[in-house]
Amino acid sequence: MSELAMLALHEQIEEEGGYVIATYYLETGRGADIVKKISAIAVEQTTGTWVPVPEETPEMREKHVAKVVGIYEVPGHEFEVPGNLEARQFIFQLAYPAVNFGPQIPMLLSTVIGNISMSGKLKLLDLKFPKSFLKSFKGPKFGTQGIRELLGIPERPLLNNMIKPCTGYTPEVGARLFSQAIRGGVDIVKDDELIADPPFCPMVERVKLYMAEARRYYEETGNKVLYTVNITDRADKVKENAKRALDAGANALMINYLTAGITALQSLAEDPEINVPILAHLDFAGTMYESPYSGLSSYLILGKLARLAGADIVVYPSPFGKFPFLRERYLQIGHHLLGKWLHFKPTFPMPGGGVMPAVVPAIIRDLGKDCILGAGGAIHGHPMGPVAGGKAMRQAIDAALQGIPIREAAEQHPELKSAIEAWGLMEDEEQALFEIKQ
Amino acid sequence: MSELAMLALHEQIEEEGGYVIATYYLETGRGADIVKKISAIAVEQTTGTWVPVPEETPEMREKHVAKVVGIYEVPGHEFEVPGNLEARQFIFQLAYPAVNFGPQIPMLLSTVIGNISMSGKLKLLDLKFPKSFLKSFKGPKFGTQGIRELLGIPERPLLNNMIKPCTGYTPEVGARLFSQAIRGGVDIVKDDELIADPPFCPMVERVKLYMAEARRYYEETGNKVLYTVNITDRADKVKENAKRALDAGANALMINYLTAGITALQSLAEDPEINVPILAHLDFAGTMYESPYSGLSSYLILGKLARLAGADIVVYPSPFGKFPFLRERYLQIGHHLLGKWLHFKPTFPMPGGGVMPAVVPAIIRDLGKDCILGAGGAIHGHPMGPVAGGKAMRQAIDAALQGIPIREAAEQHPELKSAIEAWGLMEDEEQALFEIKQ
Repeated sequence: MSELAMLALHEQIEEEGGYVIATYYLETGRGADIVKKISAIAVEQTTGTWVPVPEETPEMREKHVAKVVGIYEVPGHEFEVPGNLEARQFIFQLAYPAVNFGPQIPMLLSTVIGNISMSGKLKLLDLKFPKSFLKSFKGPKFGTQGIRELLGIPERPLLNNMIKPCTGYTPEVGARLFSQAIRGGVDIVKDDELIADPPFCPMVERVKLYMAEARRYYEETGNKVLYTVNITDRADKVKENAKRALDAGANALMINYLTAGITALQSLAEDPEINVPILAHLDFAGTMYESPYSGLSSYLILGKLARLAGADIVVYPSPFGKFPFLRERYLQIGHHLLGKWLHFKPTFPMPGGGVMPAVVPAIIRDLGKDCILGAGGAIHGHPMGPVAGGKAMRQAIDAALQGIPIREAAEQHPELKSAIEAWGLMEDEEQALFEIKQ
Repeated sequence: MSELAMLALHEQIEEEGGYVIATYYLETGRGADIVKKISAIAVEQTTGTWVPVPEETPEMREKHVAKVVGIYEVPGHEFEVPGNLEARQFIFQLAYPAVNFGPQIPMLLSTVIGNISMSGKLKLLDLKFPKSFLKSFKGPKFGTQGIRELLGIPERPLLNNMIKPCTGYTPEVGARLFSQAIRGGVDIVKDDELIADPPFCPMVERVKLYMAEARRYYEETGNKVLYTVNITDRADKVKENAKRALDAGANALMINYLTAGITALQSLAEDPEINVPILAHLDFAGTMYESPYSGLSSYLILGKLARLAGADIVVYPSPFGKFPFLRERYLQIGHHLLGKWLHFKPTFPMPGGGVMPAVVPAIIRDLGKDCILGAGGAIHGHPMGPVAGGKAMRQAIDAALQGIPIREAAEQHPELKSAIEAWGLMEDEEQALFEIKQ
């Protein structure tokens, strides 16, 4: 066994609390020495480089090198490697001493998928953190329960609307669309990710006009709504934008957290002066997760890291809509966001991208009542107009909760009927309703 | 032609100055309607969604929709699509109205590779910006010339050393390595990307001890050196770290700009109170560029966007070292960083990752004298120690500039001889030297 391998391979890790365990996919050529290769990665991402250096002492290595926890071939060949196999696939795990990078996301990522992101077919699939690392993060300030309390809606799945068109309109046009959406029964209105603070639709103007609509609606009906205003900007302006939005009356914020930087989200969430929920938008995520062979998993980007950074709501792809996305991934992310995880409040999963009334039963089946249905075009593009679009979505939610098939509920509700006539039904709705009832 | 296509397809674009032109790779199934598909992308990433919405008026579309500039099949089938072809490949170009996102990188990225990053096999290859967009960016504060003036080295390729081990050492050990590196003739010492401000090696302590070494060296020899201290942290702490480093005497900064956020780099570069050069480290870049089918090109991430955001030095993969990286990509990035581009000062390309004396002629041939040779292990892992490691690199630089083969120069220089005995020579060194002389 090589010297590299000897220093990195550990059957038993001491101080287990102090390691971040990273799980990777790796493809190698048939002839690669896998133990040597993975040990080299473990050394390269912690203490060493391609050649031994004098100060890399045995004591220092013991404390700071990443330890190889496991190497698993897929499938697990035992007596021979098939003759026609050109590439071999592995899942392997490394344990990184958390002291190397401390409780911050940039240095964590630089360590676990920094330079090795440029190693060919290698993808980071998962990270498990020690409690000592996680306790420095605050996570979501509101979470599912906090948002429910702000809205006064204890149990029902929430309805969100992205204003459409995405961009190009004035604050006055936006306010009219906002007003229509909430009058259709929308609980949360969000900006599209494509509009932030352009000259033709200034952010502060939007906030003032939209929040005036929200107040008027509350006075009329007693219903509260949240408006997540998009404050995406360069890192050092995000907080300034947040304060300007709050001064103008905003009751929620939105950030394209992967282009503005995941820690821009964290800096908002952990700022005690920012006392409104934060919606994290997924755009750009595919640049990092789309390849099965490189980058990092959607589960980390849209799930764990977003919750760790303090997102109260994460918008992520629905598998029933306009983005190709595996149902397994959508479930994995949704269930992580909602699951128990130390002191972190649950984050609302908000599947979006082509969400329409027909898919409501399936989403509620998959995620439970603690989800937000994100409908843009289905509301503003409804054949009977945006108010009807909102109503149709709410009718679908109510029907699903009562176990009534959408087609049947549509007989009582012209808005829902119009939506399914325009866009159809889902094939497995009966199955979804059956599972909601179980 | 579909309505979508009609609104997006434009042979002639008005107001050419106002558009960002994005070039993409796309793979589709054999049967896809390519014009419809690309028009849908153009609409989706600007004004519209999967269904028409009322406020998406013709006037608004004309002003804000992305225009399809070109669709080019690869190869350019004319009389038939070969019968056995399952997938078709295209290069296409969209022109996005810059007014939609304004002069900021996050909203630019959300627009040009935001949600569409999750569309399967689609990769952003290039962006061309209008002058009106670029004039809002300052670019590098020092650039190649500014760094040369700080160091008092008008012409020679510069030598950088990454301190190795990467992490796990104390400031005192680091200071000893620093001192050895500069005494070997290193011009710029950088932290490894894996060390920022851990408890066992606090950043401020490092700066104080290293800069004391630099002063001592200057008093002894009259030679100046820069130390790029790694201030990577969450976005809202980066500037605070920068100020702490500067207060402690730092004369340069380093940031892992892709994990800290590219605009964290920009916010440093454009801060008038930060008057030192900034080195941008590439780690994490592979998560976005490694797939040939998704994400965005290394040329954008490590080239254009880094220079736009104000990097004075960009560390990026050498094709001769430990990361697999095409020579074409390395040349494209290096030549962009150094090329004329409006008011932006040139950025120093610094190829790294396994750089050793043997590859020096090839790098100087490829990039010219305005490059920084980034050597980590080749200095600290040199058989005769780090001082000899630095000397061997400087001897290789001098030999290359004089057109003397490394093997021949090694006869005069035991340090260089030892390095090539340990790590060998490059095959095409003669060719590289020939081309330097031309």
